Amino acid sequence: MLYHIVSYLRQFFDIPGAGMFNFISFRAGLAMIFSLSFALFVGKKIIGMLRRKQIGDEIRDLGLEGQMQKKGTPTMGGIIVLLSILVPSLLFARLDNVYMLLMLTSTVWLGSIGALDDYIKVFRKNKKGLSGKFKIAGQIGLGIIVGCTLYLNDGVVLREKVPPGTSGSQLTVVGNQKIWTKESKSTLTTIPFLKNNEFDYAQLMPCNGRARNAGGWVIFVLATIFIITAVSNGANLTDGLDGLLTGTSIIIGTTLGIFAYLSGNIIYADYLNIMYIPSTGELVVFISAFIGALVGFLWYNSYPAQVFMGDTGSLALGGIIAVFAIIIRKELLIPILCGIFLVESLSVIIQVYWFKFTRRRTGVGKRVFKMTPFHHHFQKRGNNGIDAVIQKPLHPLPESKITVRFWIIAILLAVITVVTLKIR
Amino acid sequence: MLYHIVSYLRQFFDIPGAGMFNFISFRAGLAMIFSLSFALFVGKKIIGMLRRKQIGDEIRDLGLEGQMQKKGTPTMGGIIVLLSILVPSLLFARLDNVYMLLMLTSTVWLGSIGALDDYIKVFRKNKKGLSGKFKIAGQIGLGIIVGCTLYLNDGVVLREKVPPGTSGSQLTVVGNQKIWTKESKSTLTTIPFLKNNEFDYAQLMPCNGRARNAGGWVIFVLATIFIITAVSNGANLTDGLDGLLTGTSIIIGTTLGIFAYLSGNIIYADYLNIMYIPSTGELVVFISAFIGALVGFLWYNSYPAQVFMGDTGSLALGGIIAVFAIIIRKELLIPILCGIFLVESLSVIIQVYWFKFTRRRTGVGKRVFKMTPFHHHFQKRGNNGIDAVIQKPLHPLPESKITVRFWIIAILLAVITVVTLKIR
Repeated sequence: MLYHIVSYLRQFFDIPGAGMFNFISFRAGLAMIFSLSFALFVGKKIIGMLRRKQIGDEIRDLGLEGQMQKKGTPTMGGIIVLLSILVPSLLFARLDNVYMLLMLTSTVWLGSIGALDDYIKVFRKNKKGLSGKFKIAGQIGLGIIVGCTLYLNDGVVLREKVPPGTSGSQLTVVGNQKIWTKESKSTLTTIPFLKNNEFDYAQLMPCNGRARNAGGWVIFVLATIFIITAVSNGANLTDGLDGLLTGTSIIIGTTLGIFAYLSGNIIYADYLNIMYIPSTGELVVFISAFIGALVGFLWYNSYPAQVFMGDTGSLALGGIIAVFAIIIRKELLIPILCGIFLVESLSVIIQVYWFKFTRRRTGVGKRVFKMTPFHHHFQKRGNNGIDAVIQKPLHPLPESKITVRFWIIAILLAVITVVTLKIR
Repeated sequence: MLYHIVSYLRQFFDIPGAGMFNFISFRAGLAMIFSLSFALFVGKKIIGMLRRKQIGDEIRDLGLEGQMQKKGTPTMGGIIVLLSILVPSLLFARLDNVYMLLMLTSTVWLGSIGALDDYIKVFRKNKKGLSGKFKIAGQIGLGIIVGCTLYLNDGVVLREKVPPGTSGSQLTVVGNQKIWTKESKSTLTTIPFLKNNEFDYAQLMPCNGRARNAGGWVIFVLATIFIITAVSNGANLTDGLDGLLTGTSIIIGTTLGIFAYLSGNIIYADYLNIMYIPSTGELVVFISAFIGALVGFLWYNSYPAQVFMGDTGSLALGGIIAVFAIIIRKELLIPILCGIFLVESLSVIIQVYWFKFTRRRTGVGKRVFKMTPFHHHFQKRGNNGIDAVIQKPLHPLPESKITVRFWIIAILLAVITVVTLKIR
């Protein structure tokens, strides 16, 4: 919003320093500082308010060390995160950008579903919350909106580098550098190890011509729906230890931010020989606000937490990550980059199916993990109490240690994600 | 080393994929993955060894909650960090690069002083360790080596952009972009808010001509000595809570790595209009190993710690940060970027001088902080026990929470550092 106001005013006045608003990196930096500070200062007030209104999240007694002391900690803290993303995005980003509008829509959409779920759990004292079907329907709905917008909107294009003078091509001059590109509305995406690291959904179609193209888009929309649903639920399952999802999302967000910055800039994209997607640079402002909001929220959410984000936060965080990755055509990297979400989801699926399978076979259900989602497994393994100094194999780990170790794995996965794209 | 071996072999054989070794970003990614994994796997063995050889660090009883349970935790874990920096640097970096040699020298130099200090403390049971004078002498010695090398070595130059065809200029062609630059051996450095964000140490000289230039270099060497000593000791003081210095150094290292990557690449430096320093790009490999080593070390060093880094780690970490910043001409950003170190150091200085001052005036020494270095202040403030849920003002904070909050402030400072450079 400030961008538009400043641009308008500059037609009439000479505002010193206003030209810096043209730089995405400058607005991104401001957005991050603003969102981090906003989460710190507004967060404190919101936590006080949540505490007064709630008697706290109804915590199931899982028999975990230190777990019942969490009783009384307010939930729905995701409100802090969402506000800290939305306010600086509205202030510092260009609002005439289709990608920006998609990100804002996704944030509000999934945030509302999560908030409704939390509201039912906390205030209606209904422990089950919103029915699973409704949540899934909401995620699918968002997937359809995002997929169809990317298909139908004329602004959503790639620009591929072509030899100088190719018909229909456009010349970009930056400084003394000339780059010829041609617009293409395609279902191209990024995948490691394949030739030029590119893959086209349309390749999956057995036919040719227009049908191939249309089929490619259908597959793309279906993939979008699946990815949004999977990542949103994965994030939801990961949110079980103080600061776990917050820190993991900061790491994933930073990686996606780097991709968006490089892919959205013709100079960098040309130099690095990666896909150039016009207008996605603006998303750096959004993801900076996202990172800042989470870092600020971590102030209160780190162990021992003074507030939980609840589904208000977790469903939205997963959704934001998924939609962002889809827009910058990096969605096929999610299984590595968001490996934590994947493993957490798989652990639950394996646990449930193995239990059912063994119960049907032998009459007694067996478990693979001490407990799922996976992070709880480390709190319960072994029989001894917590040995705070040196963990021998299979001793339970303290909560704060499990969280930091999951962050470390998330960092390793992020580095691997970036490196795989360098392998050609 | 692998770079040189691969380059040599490529003269005779066609090794598939070997061309990727020419990319700094590829080698940096490998170095980070390698150092992180190395710290994880070798770290475990070294900790076991340290535990057997030590009865643990002699911990002064400061009356802090949970502090005496740290007894038995081995120190000198800095060895893990140093090995995890040195091995991948030697493997993946170009060793014919003067900057690289300076970084390796600094790491070994300060690591040895720190190790000697730890050795005397732990094995000689001399709690004072190495005398303060010896440590300072070592830091000053390193400062002289670094300062003089940067002055005397012919490879240490900047390249300033000049109009096409300027006499003595050199043309760089990357793709279809042509950039004219001219070499300059100068004492130019980066400073925010000043014109073009540049400052020349020689400007401080009241004279002109050759004397001005020589004087500029004298000031530069003196600044180098002061900065290395200050940052090394600052890091040493910061190392007092589980994971505090480790995490803070990861954040500072990442920021410096981004600066080095951009400053060392003519395309980026030209596009962003920042100082171009040839050959510093190679340092990205070093700092990636640095980041990876610390992230891996955090696996064991996070709260509750299974190992402390000791002076072996802390003196070297501070020195590495200082020398790296000096090489890429970002040393004047240290007061902001390393604000945590600065505040920790100031807290000790203020505490000591105020105590002496009030004692001389009134006969009774008074304290400003409950305890210094500053991080301990938050463990002691107030009189009540730890309220794990919501901290009311002035309640003591749990150790893990103080650590994460210091990290968050370090992140905020890093973002502010980057943004100030955008303000022109």
